[in-house]
Amino acid sequence: MSRIATLTLSYLGITILSLVCPALSIGQANPLVERQTSEITAVLTQQQTAWNAGDIPGFMQGYWKSPQVSFSGSSGVSRGWEAVLARYERVYPNRASMGHLDFSEVEIRPLSDSAALVLGKWHLTLSNGEMGGVFSLVFQRFPEGWKIIHDHTSLVDKKLP
Amino acid sequence: MSRIATLTLSYLGITILSLVCPALSIGQANPLVERQTSEITAVLTQQQTAWNAGDIPGFMQGYWKSPQVSFSGSSGVSRGWEAVLARYERVYPNRASMGHLDFSEVEIRPLSDSAALVLGKWHLTLSNGEMGGVFSLVFQRFPEGWKIIHDHTSLVDKKLP
Repeated sequence: MSRIATLTLSYLGITILSLVCPALSIGQANPLVERQTSEITAVLTQQQTAWNAGDIPGFMQGYWKSPQVSFSGSSGVSRGWEAVLARYERVYPNRASMGHLDFSEVEIRPLSDSAALVLGKWHLTLSNGEMGGVFSLVFQRFPEGWKIIHDHTSLVDKKLP
Repeated sequence: MSRIATLTLSYLGITILSLVCPALSIGQANPLVERQTSEITAVLTQQQTAWNAGDIPGFMQGYWKSPQVSFSGSSGVSRGWEAVLARYERVYPNRASMGHLDFSEVEIRPLSDSAALVLGKWHLTLSNGEMGGVFSLVFQRFPEGWKIIHDHTSLVDKKLP
């Protein structure tokens, strides 16, 4: 399974843990933390729903629709919303090939009023095996809402052949 | 070589490319971009110098000295400045074991006045081989200066046995 196959499977949050933002001294009950957690969780949930319904274009709505959106992983660094969409559609020609995603230990850490770091673990169950790893996402708030501007996803334990 | 062995080898920048911050509409000539690039480059350079001199505690000065500093990689997510220092010192008992680091395609992308995303590639030359990969760092500005609060490092092409 290529990097792109696992690259953005990662941020469909189930359990969301809101952490304090140390440099900004933001407490967990802070409205900024609460709002970011709520809004970013909605993006992740929308992506998870889309992925598990086989809707790759819907899944891609969570990303910044720009040639500058970036993805780091086992193939290096790649860029561009259109290019990533095309690769996903090539790697996953149908619903069955996409498997089922689960997430755990998702953390949303505000960096500013308009930026957040999101960490977590992903797990993908396919008909012929399973795999999992970790992801680090940087979200930025645009007029149209929170979008992922950078995604670094890697494997921790690859059980597929 | 364990993840921790490659985890934080990553941000000793040589070529620094300052990119625009899209959501904030910051141009490349913006003083914020220039200042962040200069200050973060100094941190990376200090770390590179320390690593290649076999000075692990000096290298670790680039990180947020907190139990909350986080590292994502092939072993999952780990946390804590003290724990990471101890692991480095165990994995790298002497200068020769640390090899020589080179960096390329380093990009500094401001997220706010006090946060930045830094991407790049790392390459490590050891006596018995070489390895390389990609890193994504989140820097935050503290009263004592810019520190890495999160590090996601992964392999792209592992040439070691």
